[in-house]
Amino acid sequence: MSSSSPSGEDRLIARFFGPIATDPGALGLTDDAAFIKPPPGTEMVLKTDAIVGGIHFFPEDPADAVAQKALRVNLSDLAAKGAKPLGFLVSLALPKEIDEAWLAAFASGLREDAATYKCPLFGGDTVRSPGPVMVSVATFGSVPEGRMVKRAGARAGDHVFVTGSIGDAALGLRLRQGASWPLDDKQREHLLSRYLLPRPRNALAQAVLDYASASMDVSDGLAGDLAKLARVSKVAAEIEVARVPLSDAAQAAIAHDAALLETALTGGDDFEILCTVPPANIDRFRVATMMARTAIADIGVIGEGEGAVFRNRDGAAMTFAHASFSHF
Amino acid sequence: MSSSSPSGEDRLIARFFGPIATDPGALGLTDDAAFIKPPPGTEMVLKTDAIVGGIHFFPEDPADAVAQKALRVNLSDLAAKGAKPLGFLVSLALPKEIDEAWLAAFASGLREDAATYKCPLFGGDTVRSPGPVMVSVATFGSVPEGRMVKRAGARAGDHVFVTGSIGDAALGLRLRQGASWPLDDKQREHLLSRYLLPRPRNALAQAVLDYASASMDVSDGLAGDLAKLARVSKVAAEIEVARVPLSDAAQAAIAHDAALLETALTGGDDFEILCTVPPANIDRFRVATMMARTAIADIGVIGEGEGAVFRNRDGAAMTFAHASFSHF
Repeated sequence: MSSSSPSGEDRLIARFFGPIATDPGALGLTDDAAFIKPPPGTEMVLKTDAIVGGIHFFPEDPADAVAQKALRVNLSDLAAKGAKPLGFLVSLALPKEIDEAWLAAFASGLREDAATYKCPLFGGDTVRSPGPVMVSVATFGSVPEGRMVKRAGARAGDHVFVTGSIGDAALGLRLRQGASWPLDDKQREHLLSRYLLPRPRNALAQAVLDYASASMDVSDGLAGDLAKLARVSKVAAEIEVARVPLSDAAQAAIAHDAALLETALTGGDDFEILCTVPPANIDRFRVATMMARTAIADIGVIGEGEGAVFRNRDGAAMTFAHASFSHF
Repeated sequence: MSSSSPSGEDRLIARFFGPIATDPGALGLTDDAAFIKPPPGTEMVLKTDAIVGGIHFFPEDPADAVAQKALRVNLSDLAAKGAKPLGFLVSLALPKEIDEAWLAAFASGLREDAATYKCPLFGGDTVRSPGPVMVSVATFGSVPEGRMVKRAGARAGDHVFVTGSIGDAALGLRLRQGASWPLDDKQREHLLSRYLLPRPRNALAQAVLDYASASMDVSDGLAGDLAKLARVSKVAAEIEVARVPLSDAAQAAIAHDAALLETALTGGDDFEILCTVPPANIDRFRVATMMARTAIADIGVIGEGEGAVFRNRDGAAMTFAHASFSHF
């Protein structure tokens, strides 16, 4: 980390962030830059995503969760591309109110995830800001040369799969904003935790790499993201809403208020993998997901044409007021 | 660019940022991520630096200059490490007041520099923020394997070189803040422009790679940055202040107020290269700098010991109130 407050900053960085910079190429964060050599036969996958206090997280969220959310929203993209994490850079804008305890907790969350996801820190920058906390992460991963799994690539006949469960984070956000539904404590906690902390599906990256024809992570809502995948693949997607995986908690909320189904299908922050798999690969893909202990659901098929259609039980196409979540 | 406002954002990104994403690996910014293969025999150099409105630039600065400053502070690090730019990622936090005209100017500045420095865009993220504009850039460059020029590496007997001129940006900032010195229009304009827009020394990267024993860019002030280089190299640096290159404008300001010499030597935002060169390499280094049309000055020597000493004409060591500029 260079620039700004060398005295105070260098000391804090060495103490809090140095231990996360475990790769020799990071030079213990004592240099202007770091270096990395991608493994032979691979190329690097690059991604940056930022989160801002009051927009992507609540200012009162625990600092370790903020750090982990910032890293995980990026790791989720690497997973969807079939890439193995190699490391990350972080830019941190901090308002005056942030104290050392907050920074210590932030670094501790980052350190834990860097170890869990085998994704060490390669450098960063800490700047003072008159605005809210902003964390910008740039991640890089590796895939065998030429094999990054793209959004474009879905073909007619492919099946559409999604990992985990859809809508939990969007419903969790509604709870944070004061919504009140008849949920038990465990259901409530499930939705809240899914908003607070994404669970990126990096365990599934190899299966996606081996068997998917197209893939992306669901960050802006299943409906909108699938529409994007269909658009760049120049195909149509047809989804059976009844097969979209919903958690017990999401089902309970929707049973109480049917309009929440749209929230689940179009809300953001799922950080699940949405991918298409050619029929010939489906059995092996299923086995690979079981080996990776990651739940998947076959939610529909790809056909000729364009657009993404969500059909309910009677076959009617759903229409959404907002196809996709927007922070703007 | 993913996340947030797919409808509005995707449209703006395609229009403004798509043309900067000229590398095939950027997939025209239509995917979640990009890919890149470093040239054979090279490794990648990684760096991230962020700038914040009201801290690193003035909110009223032209948007194209803001974009260029954000990219150039990062390019400056690549240059100092002897690395050739390969590309960059950008994270952009925008307050509501920012309109399409601002964004168009921002993208136009970025596009110009991406072409000038051969450093195309590989992806990014645009988020809404209740705070000021923040631009976080992550750059990646290439160096022959194992040869990134580090801060550590200076040895007793090496000469200390610095490019261009020192202190202009710090004095320019003082002018922006209302300082009034007897300067002519050209001198004033020179200092102001050096604060507004860094001129990174990427033309010198190859010479640094070939001949320097240690190198860094001067971003937090010559005095403080040299002290850092000396510390990690475990050597002492001895500088003759009279040999530190000052522009006409800086000389005029200092002639008016001698205390501004300290501002020049310790102020930030120079974005010059500070490097050490072993005696055996000096002649070839000088020739290479001439070929690169980059002014350099031999400002002192490395010796045994520790710390960085700045000696004035009578040989006395200067003491600085603040060894280095801090935004905190």
